[in-house]
Amino acid sequence: MKYPNSNKHFQKEALHDTSRRGMSLESEINRSNQYYLDNDLANIHKKPTPITIVNVDYPSRNAAKITEAYFKIPSTTDYNGIYKGKYIDFEAKECQSKTAFPFTSIHPHQIKHLQSVIKHGAVAFLIMRMTHYGRDYLIRADEFLAFYFSGKRKSLPYSWIQEHGYPITFKLLIPCDYLKAVDEAFNL
Amino acid sequence: MKYPNSNKHFQKEALHDTSRRGMSLESEINRSNQYYLDNDLANIHKKPTPITIVNVDYPSRNAAKITEAYFKIPSTTDYNGIYKGKYIDFEAKECQSKTAFPFTSIHPHQIKHLQSVIKHGAVAFLIMRMTHYGRDYLIRADEFLAFYFSGKRKSLPYSWIQEHGYPITFKLLIPCDYLKAVDEAFNL
Repeated sequence: MKYPNSNKHFQKEALHDTSRRGMSLESEINRSNQYYLDNDLANIHKKPTPITIVNVDYPSRNAAKITEAYFKIPSTTDYNGIYKGKYIDFEAKECQSKTAFPFTSIHPHQIKHLQSVIKHGAVAFLIMRMTHYGRDYLIRADEFLAFYFSGKRKSLPYSWIQEHGYPITFKLLIPCDYLKAVDEAFNL
Repeated sequence: MKYPNSNKHFQKEALHDTSRRGMSLESEINRSNQYYLDNDLANIHKKPTPITIVNVDYPSRNAAKITEAYFKIPSTTDYNGIYKGKYIDFEAKECQSKTAFPFTSIHPHQIKHLQSVIKHGAVAFLIMRMTHYGRDYLIRADEFLAFYFSGKRKSLPYSWIQEHGYPITFKLLIPCDYLKAVDEAFNL
């Protein structure tokens, strides 16, 4: 894909301005997924938030109103789907810290899930937004897990992320264009 | 279009006849998925029910109680995951009728979704429980869609299901052992 110079300029500018979009990482990924879907590039969705429904009212025949429910701890990652015939699985995280991503921000269930899908042949990764720097990175889940289980640290240093992560670029139509980084990271 | 054989009388009979297990199809698939997961055979999950959350109360610091929410129409199928390196995607349906599965029981969104994932190389199918007969079948989504779009009928006849479907067997530990049928239907 080719982009006129003005767009490239805009991208660079955008990377330096941390409040550049005013959109959450989740919204940007959802919009990117919609673009990928509409253009037949991939079929990837965010899973609905898991909740336990306790009570439902039926004010009328065709309407159901949930009046009591609670959030559940997710047992998987938030996103999955298919791209170039491959099973895609990832988790997205925003990191407020300037220096490192703390491992407490990722559920042990999700760690276990990533290990499992990798074993079955998934293209698995994390998308990490370093909010302070206004930068998004794709991190291969296998590399992340190797560091996580090395026991060296209780967080992932930003320097490590810069070295091992694949930068994700921002485009107007694809605000978090992670598939390009997937191609690069997994040679697809 | 109405089917004379699918009236309430027959439905009641069917319900009396074959609650061979006393579990819903969904529960049986969930239990089977748990078995597959625990035994490292596959990683397949039911997606949470999509809802729109309107109001959340915080009675205490760590507790969030959803007090108003509504069910959304699902934009994808209910189940997906990975098996033998393949992206797996399916929908499960219980059919009360003795003679045919009505197409009104499947959302147009889900039809579109199945078309899309097939295009990207998914192993996509339906699991259909014919409750009257107490039988479960795996139906390849590509074959289902070919019939659906042929315009011949507004439902899938049971005779067609018997001819084109792959029977799914019941085991105590794997109450809906559909992976065996996947192997057969897709030569995995």
